[in-house]
Amino acid sequence: MVKGIKGVVFRQVDPTARESGLSATNRLVIFMILAAVAAAVIETEPTVSAGRETLFQALELSFGILFSVEYLLRLWVADLNPVFGAAKHPRLKFVTSPASIVDLLAIIPSFFAFADGATLMLRFVRFFRILRLARLGRFSRAWRDLGEALHSRREELFLAFSLAAFTLLIASSLLYWAESEAQPDKFGSIPRAFWWGIVTLTTVGYGDVYPVTALGKFFSALVSIAAIGTIALPTGILAAAMSDVMQRRREKPAD
Amino acid sequence: MVKGIKGVVFRQVDPTARESGLSATNRLVIFMILAAVAAAVIETEPTVSAGRETLFQALELSFGILFSVEYLLRLWVADLNPVFGAAKHPRLKFVTSPASIVDLLAIIPSFFAFADGATLMLRFVRFFRILRLARLGRFSRAWRDLGEALHSRREELFLAFSLAAFTLLIASSLLYWAESEAQPDKFGSIPRAFWWGIVTLTTVGYGDVYPVTALGKFFSALVSIAAIGTIALPTGILAAAMSDVMQRRREKPAD
Amino acid sequence: MVKGIKGVVFRQVDPTARESGLSATNRLVIFMILAAVAAAVIETEPTVSAGRETLFQALELSFGILFSVEYLLRLWVADLNPVFGAAKHPRLKFVTSPASIVDLLAIIPSFFAFADGATLMLRFVRFFRILRLARLGRFSRAWRDLGEALHSRREELFLAFSLAAFTLLIASSLLYWAESEAQPDKFGSIPRAFWWGIVTLTTVGYGDVYPVTALGKFFSALVSIAAIGTIALPTGILAAAMSDVMQRRREKPAD
Amino acid sequence: MVKGIKGVVFRQVDPTARESGLSATNRLVIFMILAAVAAAVIETEPTVSAGRETLFQALELSFGILFSVEYLLRLWVADLNPVFGAAKHPRLKFVTSPASIVDLLAIIPSFFAFADGATLMLRFVRFFRILRLARLGRFSRAWRDLGEALHSRREELFLAFSLAAFTLLIASSLLYWAESEAQPDKFGSIPRAFWWGIVTLTTVGYGDVYPVTALGKFFSALVSIAAIGTIALPTGILAAAMSDVMQRRREKPAD
Repeated sequence: MVKGIKGVVFRQVDPTARESGLSATNRLVIFMILAAVAAAVIETEPTVSAGRETLFQALELSFGILFSVEYLLRLWVADLNPVFGAAKHPRLKFVTSPASIVDLLAIIPSFFAFADGATLMLRFVRFFRILRLARLGRFSRAWRDLGEALHSRREELFLAFSLAAFTLLIASSLLYWAESEAQPDKFGSIPRAFWWGIVTLTTVGYGDVYPVTALGKFFSALVSIAAIGTIALPTGILAAAMSDVMQRRREKPAD
Repeated sequence: MVKGIKGVVFRQVDPTARESGLSATNRLVIFMILAAVAAAVIETEPTVSAGRETLFQALELSFGILFSVEYLLRLWVADLNPVFGAAKHPRLKFVTSPASIVDLLAIIPSFFAFADGATLMLRFVRFFRILRLARLGRFSRAWRDLGEALHSRREELFLAFSLAAFTLLIASSLLYWAESEAQPDKFGSIPRAFWWGIVTLTTVGYGDVYPVTALGKFFSALVSIAAIGTIALPTGILAAAMSDVMQRRREKPAD
Repeated sequence: MVKGIKGVVFRQVDPTARESGLSATNRLVIFMILAAVAAAVIETEPTVSAGRETLFQALELSFGILFSVEYLLRLWVADLNPVFGAAKHPRLKFVTSPASIVDLLAIIPSFFAFADGATLMLRFVRFFRILRLARLGRFSRAWRDLGEALHSRREELFLAFSLAAFTLLIASSLLYWAESEAQPDKFGSIPRAFWWGIVTLTTVGYGDVYPVTALGKFFSALVSIAAIGTIALPTGILAAAMSDVMQRRREKPAD
Repeated sequence: MVKGIKGVVFRQVDPTARESGLSATNRLVIFMILAAVAAAVIETEPTVSAGRETLFQALELSFGILFSVEYLLRLWVADLNPVFGAAKHPRLKFVTSPASIVDLLAIIPSFFAFADGATLMLRFVRFFRILRLARLGRFSRAWRDLGEALHSRREELFLAFSLAAFTLLIASSLLYWAESEAQPDKFGSIPRAFWWGIVTLTTVGYGDVYPVTALGKFFSALVSIAAIGTIALPTGILAAAMSDVMQRRREKPAD
């Protein structure tokens, strides 16, 4: 148990410092991440943001300053964390760890708070702000459990998605064959027919593309039935992976 | 076994008084709840209710009187119920119990049987009449079993719904990025793109919103595939919870 | 083992007479049922049946005569079947058994082969011809196994469908509340909103009805998410019932 | 371990020659199959292939030559493979094995690289090029495992698909009955109503066909609910089969 102000800061900013639960600072950071994402989402709605540009810029700047302060504090106490402390240069190891890179990247969008140049750049920065959510992963063991469960079944998932890709390719080729003359803009090539294939195999069925010829409807019927299997296989694997996570969490309930 | 008329009333109106099964009065109350809900549903159809306003008002008033009588009888015999009888003021405890508050709230709409003022108020009261169905929960142990099974898996459900919310947010941001210029009314902001995201991730796919640009279709295809996982996780958890309920009911079959 | 021509007929026409497998006559009857249903289906297509009315009438009459002959033969040998033979009047018991009633009903449509009166009557008779498929149930033990598995889980299925009905009712009431003014023809009453509710909760999503107001879209999003649970519960129960059937068939593989 | 150049070629071209993993040549062949399929898919897109016909013809010819060389090499070393070597005429047995026939068929489309006669012929050849993917099956044990798992549950799958076909037939007959007058082009015969039935039972729901009459909507609601079961049964069987594959792969992890 490290004493002094550095020890207090460590136990406040590092989510792994405490045996269980989250510190007040961790809770505040989680809240700030959610607030920053909510602000980034709401700002895109013109009926809300019109005339409030300064407010949203100030908010974004505040989030940037607060995230920077938290980052610097964690950099300062990095040598107290056993993972980084064991390295020769604890702070260098902290800076180059994947989680810290995510944290640093989450600060960058704030520098663009006042940018209003190219629309595409602005939209990219906005999207980046939303990816701040990825920082939340650091605070939850459940995500890591789920990630591990999926990783342990990567071969089965690869098999299931290969089968789905194969089904999609055959389905799109069949519909291209049957429909390319009747609907050249929608089925005029196999890549164009992929859109229909995805919409059908996932059973979303928007209704913007569907076969009109008898042969196309027949192939589409076969594909719709094949979709049951295409969905059943990954669903079964994912449900089994989730069941593993649940089992593991029951056995070590401390989170 | 309490004797006298009070004991008879108790065994008739309190669903917990008998070891198994429901009394004739309980069955009548269930029928009345279903009838009151059916009347409230049918009354909204103008082709049926036109010219029959008085009939529906009379029906609603009858249900109100019968529900009031049942409530008062249950209030009278509340001290015979061990749950309330152990309290200092059995009737006060009965009146303040959640189930009794639901029962009391179910009587209120009848006072508005003759109201025909503001349409919004009327619609709210109508909606309330349908919530009378919630009273049925008191008569069935199966609902409580299902509620407990879901409660015991609340962490997993929270994880699954967090993942779904995260997917929805990323999906809507991507589509906003790709489609906001082509379809500003449907994808002009991230909150607007949420509607598309929900319709796609749940595979409902009405077809009122769908991407039209190549990039939007590509992102939409990825989201549709992610939808399989988004649905598979809660489905797996709920199916496992249901399996728990089934197991529990087999072991104690008396209902 | 009954000898003589009656014994031969019995072993040919009664599917329970042999320990395993089906007799040549049984196989012919199955083929005839499928052919009769196929003829009834194809006859409805005007581009095929136009000018071929006599052919289809002759076909239907042939099926009627063959089904009648089979019925009479089975009536003749009914006393050899232990189920009917134990009764006082074996033939009466045969005639009044559910399976025989289905068989008799399957003969009736042939009497209407030449009828071309009221269109509605004709369509009803056509529908009846397709129900001849139900006769196939007699030849397969798998159907009975599935029926029993579903029967043993009827309580859970009732619970799941009650929950679905409750969700549908609340969903339709909410959308009626939100959308009845914007789309009176589609959401003008709760019964009208049921159609939207079914299309959304089953995730079919034709796209003929969908909410247009912000409140309606919000409620619809909640309902779409609730749909995951509404489908997950019966799916889990049915998959478990199917698993039971598979287990039972493994243990007694003779069919 | 066969020595000399023939042994080297055998270990390079035959995927069963090595205990685990794939040789450099096998990896190259897999890459070439994927490249040939990708080229066949991209060539169909007129905006890409216009003016690049010669490039695509050259590509197709190259694939044809390379596949031919690989085929001839495998034919040369067929006698070293224990499966073919045990036969009297190893090369004849190799040529007549299903996998080799698939390989030979995959070479044929290259002969049509310069053909630009009938469009239908061309489209058929293009489709054939995509079926080259089937050659990949030879390289993966996972596919065979999945195939065996499905084969072992063929009875249950037959039962589930019979039930689905029965539901489809009854559903289409009901909708034909209810909607044939209101929408003769879409529900004017039972075969025409099949398209609606498939789109509804698989919950794709494009929205090009849906009932408009009250009776049609009522039947459609029943069918949509039945769709839950129609999908649940094969989904359960397939998920169980997948679970078998996963179990088997865990037990013998060498692939």
